[in-house]
Amino acid sequence: MSDILNIGIRSKQAQQILASAGGAAVENALNAAAAALERNANYILEENAKDIREASDSGMSDAMIDRLTLTQSRISSMADGLRKVAADENPVGKVIWGETRPNGLKIEKVTVPIGVIAVIFEARPNVTSDAAAICLKAGNSVILRGGKEAINSNKAVAETMRCAIGSAGLPEDCIILIENTSRQSAAELMRLNGYVDLLIPRGGAGLIRSVVENATVPVIETGVGNCHIYVDRDAQIKMAADITVNAKTSRVSVCNACESLLIHRDIAQKALPEIGERLKEKGVEIRGDENVCKILPYAVPASDEDWGTEYLDYIISVKTVADIDEAIAHIARYGTGHSEAIITDSYAAAEKFKQRVDAAAVYVNASTRFTDGGEFGFGAEIGISTQKLHARGPLGVEHMVSSKYVISGSGQIR
Amino acid sequence: MSDILNIGIRSKQAQQILASAGGAAVENALNAAAAALERNANYILEENAKDIREASDSGMSDAMIDRLTLTQSRISSMADGLRKVAADENPVGKVIWGETRPNGLKIEKVTVPIGVIAVIFEARPNVTSDAAAICLKAGNSVILRGGKEAINSNKAVAETMRCAIGSAGLPEDCIILIENTSRQSAAELMRLNGYVDLLIPRGGAGLIRSVVENATVPVIETGVGNCHIYVDRDAQIKMAADITVNAKTSRVSVCNACESLLIHRDIAQKALPEIGERLKEKGVEIRGDENVCKILPYAVPASDEDWGTEYLDYIISVKTVADIDEAIAHIARYGTGHSEAIITDSYAAAEKFKQRVDAAAVYVNASTRFTDGGEFGFGAEIGISTQKLHARGPLGVEHMVSSKYVISGSGQIR
Repeated sequence: MSDILNIGIRSKQAQQILASAGGAAVENALNAAAAALERNANYILEENAKDIREASDSGMSDAMIDRLTLTQSRISSMADGLRKVAADENPVGKVIWGETRPNGLKIEKVTVPIGVIAVIFEARPNVTSDAAAICLKAGNSVILRGGKEAINSNKAVAETMRCAIGSAGLPEDCIILIENTSRQSAAELMRLNGYVDLLIPRGGAGLIRSVVENATVPVIETGVGNCHIYVDRDAQIKMAADITVNAKTSRVSVCNACESLLIHRDIAQKALPEIGERLKEKGVEIRGDENVCKILPYAVPASDEDWGTEYLDYIISVKTVADIDEAIAHIARYGTGHSEAIITDSYAAAEKFKQRVDAAAVYVNASTRFTDGGEFGFGAEIGISTQKLHARGPLGVEHMVSSKYVISGSGQIR
Repeated sequence: MSDILNIGIRSKQAQQILASAGGAAVENALNAAAAALERNANYILEENAKDIREASDSGMSDAMIDRLTLTQSRISSMADGLRKVAADENPVGKVIWGETRPNGLKIEKVTVPIGVIAVIFEARPNVTSDAAAICLKAGNSVILRGGKEAINSNKAVAETMRCAIGSAGLPEDCIILIENTSRQSAAELMRLNGYVDLLIPRGGAGLIRSVVENATVPVIETGVGNCHIYVDRDAQIKMAADITVNAKTSRVSVCNACESLLIHRDIAQKALPEIGERLKEKGVEIRGDENVCKILPYAVPASDEDWGTEYLDYIISVKTVADIDEAIAHIARYGTGHSEAIITDSYAAAEKFKQRVDAAAVYVNASTRFTDGGEFGFGAEIGISTQKLHARGPLGVEHMVSSKYVISGSGQIR
């Protein structure tokens, strides 16, 4: 039997016990895991140091090393995250619909755990604790497959949490980290039908593509965000500049950052110098179409590829459009269905944009950076779903459930 | 460009127009399609006769030919089905959640169409009109890929509906039937990412398996039902017999029919003769374990394969179990997550079964045959989802939607 199949079997068995354990047991276990992370902080930091050493020996970029690095305070944040999830409302066992049929059958629709959730992620070790907590809170066991860059940190975090939930009375196998970080282990996990009920890839476009292409288990796509801001003819220029600068530069490496600016040609001459100057101050490279390059001497010509690129960097593509319809059509063609914004004072333009743009989050006069579980008031999230099935937008504890119909009869036949 | 890709592009363009057409336009179009089906009944019956001729020439079974056959009255039912869907509440544009955040951002969660829905189905031509109506009602365009046995009937039905919705002002391409019934056309459709937002396979276990194995677009699995009835120690024997006979024999070819009977060993000696006799009267072959074969002289020994088989025929597998836990474990191992029933007078057993059995529908003292959109009061259905993402159980118009967050701001940045 392969190691991965064996992990699937163990995870499924653990989930069956977890499903009967009740919400209070899960809450206690997550609080115990939070305390254990803080107690084991020195050990976790030592293991993390190994990863950092190997990363710098192998020439990893500073930005990547920063994502990999744990500190005393980051471990405290992870522990606080667990406590917050622990305190969330139990999403399982809610009766979300019910009816008595004319034949006397009483039908109830009840929320239930999804089952076994697998998460494939890249370099951030805090995903280990976040993802595990969100899955467990909804009665699911979790199989984690992190990147090799963070393997020592992930092992330390997962082992700490396993011991803690075990001491609190849940099966340790509710959390299993796959220590084999080969491509093969990820590929097997993607095809573990009958064991894995849901797979969530959390990482860059390459990972998402590979999962969509190869998985046979159900998948929720997350995270790729080629987000646009469209500055309409009736936009306030200062607001457009404030929002664009915020959405582009407040954190360039995240999926809700703005990657592309569309601007109505009637306002471009007036607005672009102000917006461009503000972006330039922040060190953003502007890749523009012909019109943009005429207006902004410091812009460089954009290639066709730029319109579809999620830079995750201090770069923005900028295009002038004839009208809102061209903006909406451009977004339909190049957007990834994540977050899209219009800046306008026109009621008609705002309504049209809200109605026509097909994305998880559609903004009027606000930064795309708000697409986030915390900012929406949902609490911890396991990613931003950019697909249309099951859940779209920030994925929190409440989305990690399915439902079943429970029917109570007294001998009814059809 | 391949034909299938071209169909994907046309369907997506049509959907964009449909999405702006509004609920009244869709209602009119579906009513027009219903009238057209009745008006064109003779033409549709002629085309159907071609399919039937070819089917009987090729030696198709009578049961299969019956599924393929249209009659004046079946066409009227199809038309009535369209009118019912037309009269359903519009599921699009509902604000299902909303909140104003402390920073003044107003967030609303609004239902939207899924987009382009593809349906791959087998021999029943009525699926063409049912599936098209359910998809359209929720603002989705539909790509239909039926089996070659029904191609003439499907073409006649689809062409009739296309003309009717076209005359009613919607793009004809909201409904596209793929006339190429090769394996290749289905395979391409399963991988049409970027165009197909959801694929629903509707057919036998082989079709479902092929789709799960090969699709890269999001899928909702439907329909495979290895449904169990567990007769508990505290069951009323007459009720157990009535329900088993109903669930097994009222219609053997459907996914909510009972395929396997589990019986507590303490009641087997007393209950099995009565249940067995009633099944035998209906011509049901009983495949039993050793105990069952001892009690029922007319039972034949079951092989291991029987426990996992969806017969869709006058055959049932029967197994004695030591207790409810063994029954639940057997269902977890061999069930397909469709419909599972317990017959019991014990409160504790009923509660345990409802809590522990993981299936779309879990019954106490009622026939599994009730798992159906109409019986649940939901109206028309496009299949029974046996997976846990998005929707589980009968899939109706209300499930053919996604949602998006619409955020109204006044310049907020993060």
